[in-house]
Amino acid sequence: MPRVAILGATGAVGDVLRKVLAEREFPVDDLVCLASPRSAGKRVAFGDDEVEVQAVSAEAFEGVDIALFSAGATRSKEWAPIAIERGVVVVDNSSAFRMQPEVPLVVADVNPEAARDHRGLVANPNCSTMQLMPVLKPILDTVGIERVTISTYQSVSGTGQSAIDGLRSEASQSLTGDAVAPAVYPHRIAFNVIPAGSFAGDDGYTDEELKLVHETRKILSAPNLRVSVTCVRVPVVTGHSEAVWVETTRPMSPAELRDLLMEREGIVVVDDPASHAYPTPLDAAGSDDVYVGRIRRDLGCENGLALWVVSDNLRKGAATNAVQIAELLVRDGLLAR
Amino acid sequence: MPRVAILGATGAVGDVLRKVLAEREFPVDDLVCLASPRSAGKRVAFGDDEVEVQAVSAEAFEGVDIALFSAGATRSKEWAPIAIERGVVVVDNSSAFRMQPEVPLVVADVNPEAARDHRGLVANPNCSTMQLMPVLKPILDTVGIERVTISTYQSVSGTGQSAIDGLRSEASQSLTGDAVAPAVYPHRIAFNVIPAGSFAGDDGYTDEELKLVHETRKILSAPNLRVSVTCVRVPVVTGHSEAVWVETTRPMSPAELRDLLMEREGIVVVDDPASHAYPTPLDAAGSDDVYVGRIRRDLGCENGLALWVVSDNLRKGAATNAVQIAELLVRDGLLAR
Repeated sequence: MPRVAILGATGAVGDVLRKVLAEREFPVDDLVCLASPRSAGKRVAFGDDEVEVQAVSAEAFEGVDIALFSAGATRSKEWAPIAIERGVVVVDNSSAFRMQPEVPLVVADVNPEAARDHRGLVANPNCSTMQLMPVLKPILDTVGIERVTISTYQSVSGTGQSAIDGLRSEASQSLTGDAVAPAVYPHRIAFNVIPAGSFAGDDGYTDEELKLVHETRKILSAPNLRVSVTCVRVPVVTGHSEAVWVETTRPMSPAELRDLLMEREGIVVVDDPASHAYPTPLDAAGSDDVYVGRIRRDLGCENGLALWVVSDNLRKGAATNAVQIAELLVRDGLLAR
Repeated sequence: MPRVAILGATGAVGDVLRKVLAEREFPVDDLVCLASPRSAGKRVAFGDDEVEVQAVSAEAFEGVDIALFSAGATRSKEWAPIAIERGVVVVDNSSAFRMQPEVPLVVADVNPEAARDHRGLVANPNCSTMQLMPVLKPILDTVGIERVTISTYQSVSGTGQSAIDGLRSEASQSLTGDAVAPAVYPHRIAFNVIPAGSFAGDDGYTDEELKLVHETRKILSAPNLRVSVTCVRVPVVTGHSEAVWVETTRPMSPAELRDLLMEREGIVVVDDPASHAYPTPLDAAGSDDVYVGRIRRDLGCENGLALWVVSDNLRKGAATNAVQIAELLVRDGLLAR
């Protein structure tokens, strides 16, 4: 059984990584929980057990087979080479290596074959990309895709536990009529929406938006796919939603798309709007599936389909896919030793 | 000076109608505040004065020159013919008459000329349509528009005061850890988003979405304009936001669009994302302007522009435009007597 480490074990995603490993009964010989020195000595839950958190160090990676990294791009850049040198296969949830040509960027149920060529590191896509891939892939394979347009409704938990606490404290102050200072983002998020994150450059796009464009093209092996995107933060705790329009190469009816998606493992179609059945982030939170609803013709495009895609950004959007990649590495004998 | 009546004087929009009439110093000879019998006798503010609310009746419209209706489609259908018969010009904020070919559907700063042909009734567009028209019109006039794609982030106040109270009570219950029953919509809205409203028919589109398609085409006199739309409710009190993509006939750069919009009365461009300057609904609430930001190239479309449009749905999206139509009727001598 492999020895598994988590870097960032005490964070919002780290917390879900431990849960998902236990829920899926991943065969763990020993779970090494790593974090920054200030979290060392903390005890965190793993299934029915508790594990003591260690400060990350080169020695801590000795004997580890798989390390799940979720401590941000800076830490990933610092520790991934050190871990890989010690024979660890790293599954990295940060943006540090995703766009490097030699690094496989893998959604487990979409392009598992990409993992075969890893050189000690497999990258886990960004949350807003991740949930869309299992939906786009069967459309691409069946009728081809010309263009995808996406606007996101992203929850705060992707920013971390501090953002969840910040949203709650802002909302609470607002309800009691107190002045509300922004606690997390440059603007207040409680009872507001924020159409931006950090900015990548001069073209007016955010990092988050460019990730969605470039990661989608890489995962789908569609380097020229036309992708239009606006990323927006909404006052939701967990669960990202996406309004999506897909222009297909050959026609596909909404009924055909519904049937196609209903066959797929990991996708749940909730689409009976007359009975108020459509996915919401509250309903998706806590689940490993991707939820799809509001499937209809795009009124503004000949071969167009409109849909609504929701998933738990900490699970399928981060931790669940990282664990699924680890499962794949074990199953296909892709570990270093 | 004209005698003005408000039907629905005690509602969320009625409240703003009284404020906007006073703020803009609309020349009111006498303000007749009408509502359902159960609100009769209430006193409501109008500038520094108070006005007693009367139960709506045929007699109440005698001597009235302009009536601003904001009491829902059913009440509009019932009372508009009665008012018109008495020589009143009705400015109707409901969806009752908007798509009737002989009824002008007017955004005051976009197609004021349409009001000239009224037959006693001018319709006020739906909030999500309204705020987009002053932005699309100069683009249409300058370079032509092939297609518009819109996803909305709509606040709850358009649903009425009960929805504002409902959002607050749901949020409060959620923060204290109590079970939360949906107070307003079929699903909880606090810390959630709802990708739907009432459904128009079998094609999977909501009434709100179809309004945006058909009203846009009518106001812009562009019956074949291609419009793609998804309408979503978010937990915001007041202020609708829209992620918009515009495919133009001839090319226009983001800088040209910025310049074009900055020249327009009633539009405020807030677009310096590196300094976190972009519109949010919280900032737009209470203002009569339409705010535009995140102006950039559409990465997925040759002649494409992406932007973010925010406005106070009770003001420019409803009350302010209704009062602007009334101003137009007075200024251009379009009252019945």
